[in-house]
Amino acid sequence: MQTHQKIAIVGSGLVGSLLAIYLKKEGHTVHVYDRSPDIREINFSGRSINLAMSNRGWKALDGVSVGDAVREIAIPMDKRAIHLVDKLNFQNYGQEGECIYSISRGILNRKMIDLAEAAGAEFYFNHKIWDITLADATLHIGETERGEWQELKYDMVFGADGAFSRIRHRMQRQSMFNYSQEFLNMGYKELHIPANADGTHKLDKNSFHIWPRGDYMLIALPNLDGSFTCTLFMPFEGENSFALLQEKEMVVAFFEKNFPDSIEVIPELADDFFKNPTSTLVTMKCFPWTFRDKIALIGDACHAIVPFYGQGMNAGFEDITILYEMIGKYGNDWKTIFAEYQKSRKPDADAIAELSYRNFMEMSTKTADPKFQLQKKIEKHFADKHPEKWIPLYSRVTFSTRPYSEALAIGDYQENIMLEVLKMNNIENIWDSLEVENLILEKLKIQ
Amino acid sequence: MQTHQKIAIVGSGLVGSLLAIYLKKEGHTVHVYDRSPDIREINFSGRSINLAMSNRGWKALDGVSVGDAVREIAIPMDKRAIHLVDKLNFQNYGQEGECIYSISRGILNRKMIDLAEAAGAEFYFNHKIWDITLADATLHIGETERGEWQELKYDMVFGADGAFSRIRHRMQRQSMFNYSQEFLNMGYKELHIPANADGTHKLDKNSFHIWPRGDYMLIALPNLDGSFTCTLFMPFEGENSFALLQEKEMVVAFFEKNFPDSIEVIPELADDFFKNPTSTLVTMKCFPWTFRDKIALIGDACHAIVPFYGQGMNAGFEDITILYEMIGKYGNDWKTIFAEYQKSRKPDADAIAELSYRNFMEMSTKTADPKFQLQKKIEKHFADKHPEKWIPLYSRVTFSTRPYSEALAIGDYQENIMLEVLKMNNIENIWDSLEVENLILEKLKIQ
Repeated sequence: MQTHQKIAIVGSGLVGSLLAIYLKKEGHTVHVYDRSPDIREINFSGRSINLAMSNRGWKALDGVSVGDAVREIAIPMDKRAIHLVDKLNFQNYGQEGECIYSISRGILNRKMIDLAEAAGAEFYFNHKIWDITLADATLHIGETERGEWQELKYDMVFGADGAFSRIRHRMQRQSMFNYSQEFLNMGYKELHIPANADGTHKLDKNSFHIWPRGDYMLIALPNLDGSFTCTLFMPFEGENSFALLQEKEMVVAFFEKNFPDSIEVIPELADDFFKNPTSTLVTMKCFPWTFRDKIALIGDACHAIVPFYGQGMNAGFEDITILYEMIGKYGNDWKTIFAEYQKSRKPDADAIAELSYRNFMEMSTKTADPKFQLQKKIEKHFADKHPEKWIPLYSRVTFSTRPYSEALAIGDYQENIMLEVLKMNNIENIWDSLEVENLILEKLKIQ
Repeated sequence: MQTHQKIAIVGSGLVGSLLAIYLKKEGHTVHVYDRSPDIREINFSGRSINLAMSNRGWKALDGVSVGDAVREIAIPMDKRAIHLVDKLNFQNYGQEGECIYSISRGILNRKMIDLAEAAGAEFYFNHKIWDITLADATLHIGETERGEWQELKYDMVFGADGAFSRIRHRMQRQSMFNYSQEFLNMGYKELHIPANADGTHKLDKNSFHIWPRGDYMLIALPNLDGSFTCTLFMPFEGENSFALLQEKEMVVAFFEKNFPDSIEVIPELADDFFKNPTSTLVTMKCFPWTFRDKIALIGDACHAIVPFYGQGMNAGFEDITILYEMIGKYGNDWKTIFAEYQKSRKPDADAIAELSYRNFMEMSTKTADPKFQLQKKIEKHFADKHPEKWIPLYSRVTFSTRPYSEALAIGDYQENIMLEVLKMNNIENIWDSLEVENLILEKLKIQ
């Protein structure tokens, strides 16, 4: 057990709530602040993408025994359902039994706050943090940015306040703070596939549905109530873009042409399209993440990534796992805990940012490409025969808890081998031959 | 002549003052705000690096006929004086007559403000801008960030307020604003070589003096009064670092060992070292630079670079040249002027940022490397014989006003040719042979 600390967490999102549970288990006083109202008392916003919980997320939840409570609201997906314009293909994600889990962000967030309250954390909603004094972990709270502020001093403060973190904002104004934010020229919009009248799902329930179309794509993830949360990813401007879809008829015509099998399952398409906002996609990197033994950033507040690997929440939860490894090693020495946490975690945050950015290319462009499908088939064939020699990159990221940076490095290595293999004569016909297998085995030896 | 506008410039530095002169010549009302006192009434700070004015800077100054006034306070430098531990080498910068010009930042800034006031610009010192309303170009001015503010509305506002721009700070909080700041793990410190008793210079007056030592270096640029402004660049931490020089004796011993010929010309070495601050080095990039027809960033406020190409001020001045090209093309259509200014200028700002970063490697590491010296010798030999076929990268950046992005691209192309040339057998002895010359000519044809 650690020496008792009075700790503030800024942000009552997924990472903030889970961190509150961890800190309460150690016996600390934990106050969680959020500028927004209690999500349990309002409707969700119509701008979220369903979450895909995978092994890193589950490990962090199970670390404080809340995994089972979350499993109750999760739907396993063992494959991609790839909707081409004229046919439907399925592609398993991993080995038998390996799944990712679809969860509604809003439902999970409500559950996490319930769990954190049950663990003894105190939540203060509608409390706006405008600034922080880093040296003595003092929050400045008030109704408006220019109005009167109240000061609240803590032993330490965690910034779990997302990609546009106010806590980071103050750290940014320190010298020697490295920072970057880069927006994709692409936005996303939430759409909705309702349940059938009998409460069943209109599409296969245990699939991650994807309509890859080159520079844009549609995805759909299942919800408990029989509905799917759909997300359209598309450039803001250009040939196929939000800018061109200005009228309801244009939207319907666009979907009829490009996502023909989606039309009958999205009845409110045109209304949803103009009711729901178009959101932006940003990659944010920074360093350092901590300030002495007083302040630490966690989750999106220190590494916001694009959603194309489904790892945003998983990476944020894993931050907590790593933080707790350091607490296990260094006890009450918070200065060292914070220093080692950021040092250990930064390369992995950079790696998953890179992988997520690259995976957009894979999801939107390559999943429809025969050469890419052949590559995946060869990899799978080889991995099935030599599971100890070839764990695919997707599995390393999704079904393992080894560091992201290791997954990235090995993934690049494997990709180079596959590029050689795909150059073989007549590879389309000999892809499952001994010759191919031996070439891969040979190349793996040279490592 | 343009339609009259009421314009605010935030920042009375070099770029802000020159921009004020340009805008006054068009007949606009120009108010220049600065949070600091009038630099003409205070001592300089002991934290600046002398400026190296080159062709891009002169072109912008001459565009409003203030070049000659500045030439009066400039000292031409036609060569590098390279101080190795045991000998002194000289290296011409360009062709006969090509020079860069050493100018004290403080003296130039005072002169520029005088010139801008003479042109009719009004300066408001000690006026702190805390925020700006982008949509209607309204400045928020006050004594303190949390105190009372006054609002001042303009037709347009230029943010010439440097790497930590307040105007940009507000733009950053818009969606889709790309931004990065990255600090080098290296700082710099100003030192001083006084004049001889008779007012002459203690080192060659018309040289840029450099003591390259691998991961650290000392430079010295001449001043009008016979002194030199020296700058020590060194890592903050590590083997040779500021962190290790904590006592006066350590500083003196370090200089005696590594810069032996500097000891007798820097009499106040140890005092200066601890009196003057250690400053940081940052590369800052962002986009967009403008907001509708209301706001435009210029100079360091939109592209702060490290000082290793001596192009920071020159690039900022050239922004004004480009802005005025757009004014020439688009007249009173400020929305198009701003859009085309940022579109045209951004790739060149990125290019000089990259070149400046790379040039640190060249200045600190390579100038002492025999292979690099051989490469420069071959380039110079070839360029002297075929001046129309081979303009060295340094000359393209420094003595030309062609775009920086073009210089970077051609420079990379030339570098690849030289890498091939340096691989030739016995190149040390045949470097000025016809064989080498023909190989270069051959490779240039393939372009």
